[in-house]
Amino acid sequence: MDKKNVVLLGSTGSIGTNVLRVIESFPHQFAVVGLAAKRNVELLAEQVRRYAPRAVSVGEEERVFELKRLIGGADVEIFQGDAGLVELATMGGADILVSAVVGAVGLEPVLRAAERGIRIAIANKEPLVMAGKIIMGTARRCGARIVPIDSEHSAVFQCLNGTPTSAVRRIILTASGGPFYGKSRKELVDVTPAQALAHPTWQMGPKISIDSATLMNKGLEVIEAMWLFGVDVDRIDVLIHPQSAVHSLVEFVDGSIMAQIGAADMKLPIQYALTYPERVPTPFGTTNLADIGDLTFTRPEPGMFPCLDYAYEAARLGGTAPAALNAANEVAVAAFLRDDLPFLGIAEVIRAVLDKHENKTDPSLEEIKRTDGMTRAEAAAAVDRLGKVCS
Amino acid sequence: MDKKNVVLLGSTGSIGTNVLRVIESFPHQFAVVGLAAKRNVELLAEQVRRYAPRAVSVGEEERVFELKRLIGGADVEIFQGDAGLVELATMGGADILVSAVVGAVGLEPVLRAAERGIRIAIANKEPLVMAGKIIMGTARRCGARIVPIDSEHSAVFQCLNGTPTSAVRRIILTASGGPFYGKSRKELVDVTPAQALAHPTWQMGPKISIDSATLMNKGLEVIEAMWLFGVDVDRIDVLIHPQSAVHSLVEFVDGSIMAQIGAADMKLPIQYALTYPERVPTPFGTTNLADIGDLTFTRPEPGMFPCLDYAYEAARLGGTAPAALNAANEVAVAAFLRDDLPFLGIAEVIRAVLDKHENKTDPSLEEIKRTDGMTRAEAAAAVDRLGKVCS
Repeated sequence: MDKKNVVLLGSTGSIGTNVLRVIESFPHQFAVVGLAAKRNVELLAEQVRRYAPRAVSVGEEERVFELKRLIGGADVEIFQGDAGLVELATMGGADILVSAVVGAVGLEPVLRAAERGIRIAIANKEPLVMAGKIIMGTARRCGARIVPIDSEHSAVFQCLNGTPTSAVRRIILTASGGPFYGKSRKELVDVTPAQALAHPTWQMGPKISIDSATLMNKGLEVIEAMWLFGVDVDRIDVLIHPQSAVHSLVEFVDGSIMAQIGAADMKLPIQYALTYPERVPTPFGTTNLADIGDLTFTRPEPGMFPCLDYAYEAARLGGTAPAALNAANEVAVAAFLRDDLPFLGIAEVIRAVLDKHENKTDPSLEEIKRTDGMTRAEAAAAVDRLGKVCS
Repeated sequence: MDKKNVVLLGSTGSIGTNVLRVIESFPHQFAVVGLAAKRNVELLAEQVRRYAPRAVSVGEEERVFELKRLIGGADVEIFQGDAGLVELATMGGADILVSAVVGAVGLEPVLRAAERGIRIAIANKEPLVMAGKIIMGTARRCGARIVPIDSEHSAVFQCLNGTPTSAVRRIILTASGGPFYGKSRKELVDVTPAQALAHPTWQMGPKISIDSATLMNKGLEVIEAMWLFGVDVDRIDVLIHPQSAVHSLVEFVDGSIMAQIGAADMKLPIQYALTYPERVPTPFGTTNLADIGDLTFTRPEPGMFPCLDYAYEAARLGGTAPAALNAANEVAVAAFLRDDLPFLGIAEVIRAVLDKHENKTDPSLEEIKRTDGMTRAEAAAAVDRLGKVCS
C-alpha cells in the first residue's frame, strides 16, 4: 500500500482522536496532511506538533489567535470556520478525507471532496441524512469511494463486500437500545443529561450519546444506510441487540444472512475504512465469541422510540424531510444538554417541526440548506415553548 | 445465467434429493444430465422419469437389472459401481458435478472432475479429508472451482467471499453439539442407534448423524476446511452453538468477524453452490433473527468429544493419518449402526487404529487408497475385539 495522505475533520472529538490513534499505528501507510477542530485548540495544537499537518482549520474565529500562540512558529497554514473545512477537504495531495465532525457542518466539505473523487471515510451522519442523494450521485459521477466508519454501516459494507444491491433482501441495523431500553415513558420524564450520556456499550461524544438514548441515532443510520447502500427504507430493519457484538447484518435474496461481529472499539471500523479493500493486522481489540456467550435480538416495541418512528417517516417522505428531522434533532438535543428541554421533549420538538414541514421533493443543495436553517429557527421556538411547558 | 448441466452423484440420499428440489425450482438455470445412486433403484427410476438424464449409475451390481426393469425403455445409459461414478463425473457436456455420495467412494470421481476443470459442488467430506492436498492441487492446476455444500463450509466460503487467506486469523466452525451434548460418558454407554440418529437441528443421513453425535463430523469438517481454505489446522476452532443458526464464522486479522446465518435447510447452501457467484431469490426457508432471539456459543470441554480430538491429531500429523482416521470412523459407525459396536466403541476403534498407524507424509493417491483399505481391515478387527468386550 502506498502511503496515503489523510485530511481529518473533527480531529479533537471522540472519533477524531481514535482516527489519529489508528494512523499512529500505521506510520508507513498514512500521513496526516490536514486537521480541523471546532474549539479545542489546546488539543489541536498538540496534534499539530505531533503529526505536522500542512494545514489546520479552527471552527470558532476567536480561537484562531490562541492556536497561533500555542503552535508558535510551526509551519502550518491556518484556516477558519465552514470555509476552512472546505479548504481542507479540497486540499491538493489529499488521498483520504475523514469526516468526523458532528452535524450539518460536514455537508459542504464532504460534497466538495466527493467532487474531487477521493476516498471519503465518513463518520459524520448528517450530510448523508440531509443530502444523501446529492452526495452519492456526486460520488458516483466523480469516482469517489465513500466508506462508512460508523460501526453499523461498516458492518453492512463488509457484509455486502461488493455484492450488488439487487441481491439484498433486507439490511438489519442493530441497536444496543441505549441506557433507557425497557424503561417506561413515565420513568423517562426526569432523565438528566448525565444519565442519558451513560451509554451501556460505546464511548462516544455527547450528541451521539443522546441520539443513542432516543434511538434517533438509529433513525439517522437508517436514512444514511438507505443512501449509502441504495436500499429502500422499508427494506431496512432495526433490531435491539444489547451486547453490541453484532454490528449489523445483511439478509440476501437467497436466504443467507451475513453478520459482522467485532469489539465495541471504533478504531476497528476506522482502520477498515482507511485500509479498505485490504484487511491489515490490527493492534486493537479482538473479540472472543465464547466469552460473549450469548447474543440476543429483539424487535423494538412499536411506539417505544418515537424518534426512530419519525426518522422512518422522514425517510419515506424523502425530499427535505430528513434535513428537517435532522435540524430539529440537533437543536433539541443541544437544548436538552443545556438543561433547557426535558428528555421527552426532544421527540416532541421533532414532531412539532415535522408537522409544520412543507416537504420539497428532489431538492437542490440550496433548498436543503434553507430547510436546515429554517427548521433550526422553528425548532428553537418549539424548544422555548416546550421547555417552558415541561419544566 | 446460461443453463448449466448438472451431474449428481448420490441422488437418492438426503443431500441428493435436496439438490434435485433446488434444481426443480430453477428449471431455466439447470438441467440434470447424470444421476448416480448406490442401491435405492426405485427412487432412482422415478428420478430418471422425472429429470431424463442422459446417464445413470448404480452402486450395487445386483440392482442394475431391477433398474432396467423399472425404467423400461427410457433412453438412458446405465453404468455401475465405482467406475460408473467416474464415468458420470467425467461425462461430456457437464458443467457442474455435485458430489453427494457418502464416504471414500467419492474420491476418484471428484478428482477426475477436478482434472476436467469443471465446477464441483461438494457435500462429500471424505475425499477432501483423505486427499485434500491432491484434490485442491489438481483443482488449482486445472481451474476447477470447488464450492462447498456443507452448511459450515458454505458459511466460511461466504464469509471469505474472495478475501485472501492471508487476511484470515481464524476459522470458527459451529457445532450444534449433537443429541448428546452435555451428557456424561456414563450416560452414553448404552446409547442406541435410534437415539444417536435423532439430531436436534438437522435432518440428515445415518452416517453423518452418528458423526454429529460423536462430533467426528466436526472433526472431518476441520480437516476439510483446512484444505478447502488453505488454513493451518490450529487456526480452525470449533464452538458449540446449539441453535445451528450461525453456520460458521471467519475472524480476520483486522479484528472483524464475519458470520453467516441461515435456516437449517440444506437447500440453501446447495442453491448457493449451484448459483455462485450469483445470489438468486430462494423459495426455501428464511430466517427471522428476532424469532431465534438468543444465540449462544461455548467452547467444547476438552476430552468431552474424543473423536474431535483425534481428528485434530490426524490433521496435525497430516500424510495418511486423516485417511486412516476416516476409514476407521466409517467402519466403526457402520458397526454401531448394525448394533455390533457400542457408541463409545466408535472412538475406541479410531484410537486403536491411529495408535497402530504408520504415517506416510505427502502420500500419493495410491498410498492413500492403500491406507484406506488396510485401515478398514484393522478397524474391522478392532470392532470384533471391542464389540465382544463391550457387549
